[in-house]
Amino acid sequence: MRLDEIAKALDCELRGAPDTEIARVWPIESAGPGDLSFIAHPGYVRYLATTQASALILTPEMEDVELPTLRTPEPRLAFARALRLFYEPPPRREGIHPSAVIAEDATIGDGASIGPHVTIEAGAAIGSDCTIGPGVAIGRGVRIGDRFRAYPNVVVCEDVTIGDDVVLHAGAVIGDDGFGYVPSAAGRLEKVIQVGTVVIGDDVEIGTNTTVDRAGVGETRIANGAKIDNLVQIGHGCEVGEYTVIAGQAGLSGSTRVGAWCQIGGQVGTKGHQTIGDLAQVAAKAGVAGDVEAGAVVGGFPALPIGTWRRATAGFARLGEILRRLRRLERAVGADDSSDGPP
Amino acid sequence: MRLDEIAKALDCELRGAPDTEIARVWPIESAGPGDLSFIAHPGYVRYLATTQASALILTPEMEDVELPTLRTPEPRLAFARALRLFYEPPPRREGIHPSAVIAEDATIGDGASIGPHVTIEAGAAIGSDCTIGPGVAIGRGVRIGDRFRAYPNVVVCEDVTIGDDVVLHAGAVIGDDGFGYVPSAAGRLEKVIQVGTVVIGDDVEIGTNTTVDRAGVGETRIANGAKIDNLVQIGHGCEVGEYTVIAGQAGLSGSTRVGAWCQIGGQVGTKGHQTIGDLAQVAAKAGVAGDVEAGAVVGGFPALPIGTWRRATAGFARLGEILRRLRRLERAVGADDSSDGPP
Amino acid sequence: MRLDEIAKALDCELRGAPDTEIARVWPIESAGPGDLSFIAHPGYVRYLATTQASALILTPEMEDVELPTLRTPEPRLAFARALRLFYEPPPRREGIHPSAVIAEDATIGDGASIGPHVTIEAGAAIGSDCTIGPGVAIGRGVRIGDRFRAYPNVVVCEDVTIGDDVVLHAGAVIGDDGFGYVPSAAGRLEKVIQVGTVVIGDDVEIGTNTTVDRAGVGETRIANGAKIDNLVQIGHGCEVGEYTVIAGQAGLSGSTRVGAWCQIGGQVGTKGHQTIGDLAQVAAKAGVAGDVEAGAVVGGFPALPIGTWRRATAGFARLGEILRRLRRLERAVGADDSSDGPP
Repeated sequence: MRLDEIAKALDCELRGAPDTEIARVWPIESAGPGDLSFIAHPGYVRYLATTQASALILTPEMEDVELPTLRTPEPRLAFARALRLFYEPPPRREGIHPSAVIAEDATIGDGASIGPHVTIEAGAAIGSDCTIGPGVAIGRGVRIGDRFRAYPNVVVCEDVTIGDDVVLHAGAVIGDDGFGYVPSAAGRLEKVIQVGTVVIGDDVEIGTNTTVDRAGVGETRIANGAKIDNLVQIGHGCEVGEYTVIAGQAGLSGSTRVGAWCQIGGQVGTKGHQTIGDLAQVAAKAGVAGDVEAGAVVGGFPALPIGTWRRATAGFARLGEILRRLRRLERAVGADDSSDGPP
Repeated sequence: MRLDEIAKALDCELRGAPDTEIARVWPIESAGPGDLSFIAHPGYVRYLATTQASALILTPEMEDVELPTLRTPEPRLAFARALRLFYEPPPRREGIHPSAVIAEDATIGDGASIGPHVTIEAGAAIGSDCTIGPGVAIGRGVRIGDRFRAYPNVVVCEDVTIGDDVVLHAGAVIGDDGFGYVPSAAGRLEKVIQVGTVVIGDDVEIGTNTTVDRAGVGETRIANGAKIDNLVQIGHGCEVGEYTVIAGQAGLSGSTRVGAWCQIGGQVGTKGHQTIGDLAQVAAKAGVAGDVEAGAVVGGFPALPIGTWRRATAGFARLGEILRRLRRLERAVGADDSSDGPP
Repeated sequence: MRLDEIAKALDCELRGAPDTEIARVWPIESAGPGDLSFIAHPGYVRYLATTQASALILTPEMEDVELPTLRTPEPRLAFARALRLFYEPPPRREGIHPSAVIAEDATIGDGASIGPHVTIEAGAAIGSDCTIGPGVAIGRGVRIGDRFRAYPNVVVCEDVTIGDDVVLHAGAVIGDDGFGYVPSAAGRLEKVIQVGTVVIGDDVEIGTNTTVDRAGVGETRIANGAKIDNLVQIGHGCEVGEYTVIAGQAGLSGSTRVGAWCQIGGQVGTKGHQTIGDLAQVAAKAGVAGDVEAGAVVGGFPALPIGTWRRATAGFARLGEILRRLRRLERAVGADDSSDGPP
């Protein structure tokens, strides 16, 4: 593709030869002739002098280089779109594979691609242009919008509601039981049956082997545009706001309400029955017990404002030293503490 | 259903109109006319004045309100049972779906409901009234009791033994290999083959995409009544005691022995080759390296008695301040420490 | 089997009766007559006096005991091999089950064992002697070497490359999308399509329900001999070096490069875009934000050199005490800090 065509498609300013031929979009570390690459992060500026790429996407402010460039305030976004220009999706299976078992009263829209060994139970309704991979199981009464995409072995349990343009990655399970038991007088644990459901909005993507529990009563809700990574656990009755991003292996305990446009880091845990406000950021591995204000940035376990946490962790590494200094001071002052054991 | 019928079924004292009609069981935050709700936690008492519910479950000690009430020392348990009174389980598939592949010498008790694309291998024996969802794979020689329930895509590997009334949620895998390798002189890692198995008692529930490894030698054991949440990893040779509850994303390393009626929080990790005594509680995200005494409550990483951990975390947030105060003291005393860099 | 035969097979020195009959290999805690056991760890020496085993594997330096012994510098390795001597693998399904759906142009080598409900898509090529369990899905254009073993419900996504002697445990997913989004001016999150792939070397084992993401661009790479446990998340563009071992529930964020012969503990997390050198060890639950030098041993969150971390955690437990001592010192010196609240 010619560079001027790409510039037009990506809405970038073109500097340099418009007829430069681009065959591929590739990261700058290993880009070669015919490649279009980008620099969004100062750490990669060092590659500018040596790259073999044929063209680069840069911000307007960056200096001119010998290579032709596309200029945009958002190089990463332009790169993502350039990838799409060159992307050829794998061919799609036509129609419904004969091994799929689909209940008579299930309804499926036009343009369906349904793989082998799929099960779709009674009363399920799926919109148009779905792509359902091998081994997927869709439960009774599930309602799903248009352009649904489920990778192999996804499970959607009964009565779950899913919007348009939703992607579920392999092995994800939506609508399994929440986790609730009550000790009974008979000395057993009695299950609190989980009679609620899950409601997922439009444009949601849910990662591989991630689990989203149905509510005990009422609904677990994932709002439009939310993106959830792999191996995440969403407990019963949680709410995840619009365009909130949750990274891998994070876990939201029951009834955690996360606002819109939040960023929840990998391996984060929440205690449950709490609110995380819009635009809040929770750093990876944090453990969050209480509410988090809108726009706050917290980290650590228990979670602290991120600045406090950074200072505290710097001090943490010096705890051996702190104890030594305390002991010396006590000797100097003659206030030695007999409760202090050997250092 | 009339409130007096419910009172009788739940063994509660009725105060107020016996003919109050109840149509649904619902949480107090959003309950309306026709709903039965409950208050078990002081945090919810504020809803008493404004709730639109038609009746409430309260403890005997709580003040009388205008609404009719059911009184019991265990409102949460009564609520759980009330849910059950109104619960209509989804209709159950009758019989064995023709696409299921069942070995000739496998035995399956009466009343089986077996979904599409199931595989049951040679020599497996399953009791009566099983409900097995689509895509489940049961390995050779597996032995399972009565009323077994497996959600879609569960895997039970060869020779595992499972008791009565066990529930395995979607994607759970029981009896996969433990993780063991030994460096060999040839400069490779040699697999320690895992020749043990898994034995699961009665009334056990295991969560979605959770994994329970077979023992290297001998047995991994999950005792009667244990409840394990989603995405949990149980290593080879572990033992989980009766009615112990393990929350989501916790991981027990090999040969961790957990006693009866323990509570293991979410994202907890254990080092392995250790014992956690009966009734112990391990707070969420704790990392437990050694033994934990029966009845102890521990938290943090490395795990400490919960009180110590709480005080330490309070101090942790003040480490920046501690360093400043130490420095000022050193100046005051003239014992400045040159090894102490800028604060 | 006679003990002298075993000695020969394991390349151990035999001390004691060569005709001792061994029927089983078993851990020393519960070994009985006819059992061969071993002691590799000082903690188990106490069993020497009371064990009912018929023979033991010991190091050459350990004292002679009444029992016949096999001597080797590597008792654990010899034990692992002894297990193998007595191991009878379960019988293998012959051929391809008729319910498997295999694309016409997929190629599969001799000696294949393919279970029910398997899907193998167009253009996939699998070597000889594969064993593929029920419900496995192999995507378009996947290339796999000889002696491949996939347990039930494994998913290998399109275009992934896998070497010889690779084992994928149940529910593992290889080649699902990496996690990348860019906020767009329209106030949405735009997906960065993931056009890269995954390349796995020879002799790799990947655990149950573990996920290995395809690279955004280029390759996620798992080198020869690497061993990855259950419920691990490997982000897009990561590299895992030869014979590196990654324990359960660890997560590598995108573009983490881990060297050869590293040990990554359970529930570890990495920040991504970083390098962990050869032979490095990361203790369980650590959070690693930056590079780790070859051979280094780190622990904690944020990760510190392991000695520093141990001293710091010892100090952490004493933070309540540290604050009390600081306060007393300040009183003694008359430098009381009014910003210090009640202890």
